[in-house]
Amino acid sequence: MLSNRIRNSKLLNKVCTAKEAAMLIKDGMNVATSGFTPSGYPKAVPLALAKLAKETKNKIKINLYTGASVGDELDGALARADIIEKRLPYQTNKSLREITNRGKCEFLDMHLSHVPHYTKLGFLGKIDIAIIEAVAITKEGHIIPSTSIGASPTYVKMADKVIIEINTSQPPQLEGMADIYIPKNPPYTRPIPIVMPNDRIGTEYIPCGIDKIAAIVITDIKDNVRPLAPVDETSQKISEHLINFLKREVEEGRLTNELLPIQSGVGSVANAVLAGLGKSDFENLVCYTEVIQDSMLELIDTSKVLFASGTSITPSIEGLEKFKENIKFYRDKIILRPQEISNHPEVIRRLGVIAINTAVEVDIYGNVNSTNIMGSGMMNGIGGSGDFTRNAYISIFTTPSTAKNGEISSIVPMVSHHDHTEHDVMVVITEQGVADLRGLSPKERAESIIKNCAHPDFRPMLIDYFNRAKEGRDKHIPHILEEALSWHARFMKKGTMRVK
Amino acid sequence: MLSNRIRNSKLLNKVCTAKEAAMLIKDGMNVATSGFTPSGYPKAVPLALAKLAKETKNKIKINLYTGASVGDELDGALARADIIEKRLPYQTNKSLREITNRGKCEFLDMHLSHVPHYTKLGFLGKIDIAIIEAVAITKEGHIIPSTSIGASPTYVKMADKVIIEINTSQPPQLEGMADIYIPKNPPYTRPIPIVMPNDRIGTEYIPCGIDKIAAIVITDIKDNVRPLAPVDETSQKISEHLINFLKREVEEGRLTNELLPIQSGVGSVANAVLAGLGKSDFENLVCYTEVIQDSMLELIDTSKVLFASGTSITPSIEGLEKFKENIKFYRDKIILRPQEISNHPEVIRRLGVIAINTAVEVDIYGNVNSTNIMGSGMMNGIGGSGDFTRNAYISIFTTPSTAKNGEISSIVPMVSHHDHTEHDVMVVITEQGVADLRGLSPKERAESIIKNCAHPDFRPMLIDYFNRAKEGRDKHIPHILEEALSWHARFMKKGTMRVK
Repeated sequence: MLSNRIRNSKLLNKVCTAKEAAMLIKDGMNVATSGFTPSGYPKAVPLALAKLAKETKNKIKINLYTGASVGDELDGALARADIIEKRLPYQTNKSLREITNRGKCEFLDMHLSHVPHYTKLGFLGKIDIAIIEAVAITKEGHIIPSTSIGASPTYVKMADKVIIEINTSQPPQLEGMADIYIPKNPPYTRPIPIVMPNDRIGTEYIPCGIDKIAAIVITDIKDNVRPLAPVDETSQKISEHLINFLKREVEEGRLTNELLPIQSGVGSVANAVLAGLGKSDFENLVCYTEVIQDSMLELIDTSKVLFASGTSITPSIEGLEKFKENIKFYRDKIILRPQEISNHPEVIRRLGVIAINTAVEVDIYGNVNSTNIMGSGMMNGIGGSGDFTRNAYISIFTTPSTAKNGEISSIVPMVSHHDHTEHDVMVVITEQGVADLRGLSPKERAESIIKNCAHPDFRPMLIDYFNRAKEGRDKHIPHILEEALSWHARFMKKGTMRVK
Repeated sequence: MLSNRIRNSKLLNKVCTAKEAAMLIKDGMNVATSGFTPSGYPKAVPLALAKLAKETKNKIKINLYTGASVGDELDGALARADIIEKRLPYQTNKSLREITNRGKCEFLDMHLSHVPHYTKLGFLGKIDIAIIEAVAITKEGHIIPSTSIGASPTYVKMADKVIIEINTSQPPQLEGMADIYIPKNPPYTRPIPIVMPNDRIGTEYIPCGIDKIAAIVITDIKDNVRPLAPVDETSQKISEHLINFLKREVEEGRLTNELLPIQSGVGSVANAVLAGLGKSDFENLVCYTEVIQDSMLELIDTSKVLFASGTSITPSIEGLEKFKENIKFYRDKIILRPQEISNHPEVIRRLGVIAINTAVEVDIYGNVNSTNIMGSGMMNGIGGSGDFTRNAYISIFTTPSTAKNGEISSIVPMVSHHDHTEHDVMVVITEQGVADLRGLSPKERAESIIKNCAHPDFRPMLIDYFNRAKEGRDKHIPHILEEALSWHARFMKKGTMRVK
């Protein structure tokens, strides 16, 4: 059994306990791990590290770099053990969010394509230790990654030492799905030779080598995949608007019935959109995205989607069983790439990706806040939304028109934090309707967003703001600066954006 | 003479007056022209159109698309004649700025790389007429562009009809400097085969064809090139900080003494930076930029810069004479590309461009406003700063720490308009110093920017804001929303951001 997982007997003497591996991690280190959208992240070593920290008096602090979000065994356990000094580039963990917003953890919110790039260029400091979850280690000491690729190839390349968690709960059949390619640094960078989403351009393993491996830990803790968000009525309506928008694009000749590669975030709206695509007349679809979830696997099952490229696969427990059973069917229909490639501007613009992402709030001029609640409180992070939006064929943001039981309008005079600017956002969709902003000036955008996307309860307030703003001195992007963020301030004080 | 300029005798019967050509332009048309950073834009036809509009009762309105900024004969004359309904993507003209900010012209502020791309995809509507300045027309009816390429190749490709202005004041020696390449639309897009800034990948002419040419106008009106902004003391200091920053990057091993391709905007700071590079120890430099000005030609003269790729060349009147005389020397040292290529994310990231752009204001968390004064008043536009910044090897923004004789702080609690977000800005430089934001969390960025970049007069106010903001509920990006834009509001009311 183990010889299948660790294919060089020289490596067997590096097998150790999670605690022994955790003891390699010292105060002040930059620790980089596998993991992308709770999948394929190390679990045993961080749990052991958190336990160690509680048992010893000598507090340690590390900077923790990952691909994207990871499970509670990593972010949660280390956050609660007060070990994380600095964290990048994305997270979805309650405990980590709490220490971030309390000011106890320095969080860097980065474009996911930038993370491996900046790591290679030395902008994020030296990587002391990489901890990578794997299904196997090859004879040469190379790593067969588990359910996510993320930034692991670059972290391994740049790390002084590598700890590998062989996770026996992860299907060995994943071998062959990864396609690892690391662009060289300038001035030696060459074109990334992907011209179709299913092009394979790299190796099936993460290059590492025997000497770099400092410890191997065997574990069977399962990926703590979040359950699929249920499709509610609002998400359903947003999905219908989106499908109708795409249909009109086909009618207008700007898309064909096969569309173009689709990128779709995660969550209730994304699931509704994928379900909507499943029922639509579109055919032979392909995805060039980050995360492959159950809902996408189902579209592959029915051949609605012919192919999906991502950087992680996050099946549910039942989904994982089906995935294992039908691995031969899936093998030539899925590629897992490093996030530098899945999210690379070069590839996204070349392929003409239709980018569908979720906004926290949108303002009347088309700026989008994806990250910070009321301007200051980190939700998750920008993730890949910037990589895809800026370079998309069509960039789409969805959001329910209200939040907090209708006390918050997701359409506001000015967003309280800017992640995507007026220069990048093409289409905004709420359950109310679609604002197609392409070719519109700021004032035209405001009219379209207020009319088509705002909730009727807030529409008169937005019209009133916009009309009064237009009486100001400069009318290119009319604002009343004293009032632009007053809706948020009101919510902070009174628990509602409503005036009475 | 003319046979050199118009090389197919069939085309001679299309030669007409500017007025006759202008009469082809009808109400409601989308008119797209050559021109990028006042060079190579049509002059005779727009002047004739403006004159026509004043003489006739039937008012016409057009949407005017260009490469970037154009001279007063186009933007100014048409703005004053009240002909422009909608304008994109960039401008620097006083009259146009005035009607935009008065709300009399709908202005779309776009990433310059997006303009040809979106035109091809049909997102900006049909191009009815393209007006292109040329030095010659080939036998096949193809266009030898003058001093700018901009979006001309795509405008010609997508236009129903093309009007060509042969400008005899433009040196015919420009022929051979253009390198025209238009990527195909997805799903047929292929890698752009540039791996070095001096790679030639296309044709020396803009493909057009005889049939598409509706009119040819002969003119000799000179490019209305703006004089080089003088290097003042503040710009000088900023330049010194920047050169020292780059030296440190070399010392740290993140750059070599040849640096990487440089993109530099226009204006006083840009001139000071280029002058600083001229005096520095860096050598064998190359530029991958938008505009090639006198200051860059001088660096080529001294072999400090070996090669420059841009989308326009804007020599002064004396610079133009020198350029003509030494054309053989310059020929293999300059390439002019379409702005889709000069500004393409794929190429910029591949080459590892060092992007140096100017900010109107920067906030303590590293967000940059490049465009809108006090949030509402358009200055020029985002131009290519977004294309370069997001994809740069190192992205740098420069700004004097104060404006309006010290009444405005360029470092503010929150920028009044967001063009570049915290996710994209690596380095901020004022005459006060350098804030290197790479790897810093928002709060760390605030400390660095306030300490290194803010003017001492405003530093205590910024520290006070930051400290009080940190007492709020959420501390990831601490803000006091009621106060975040109050500095701007105060300036609007009292003419100063100072408190007393």
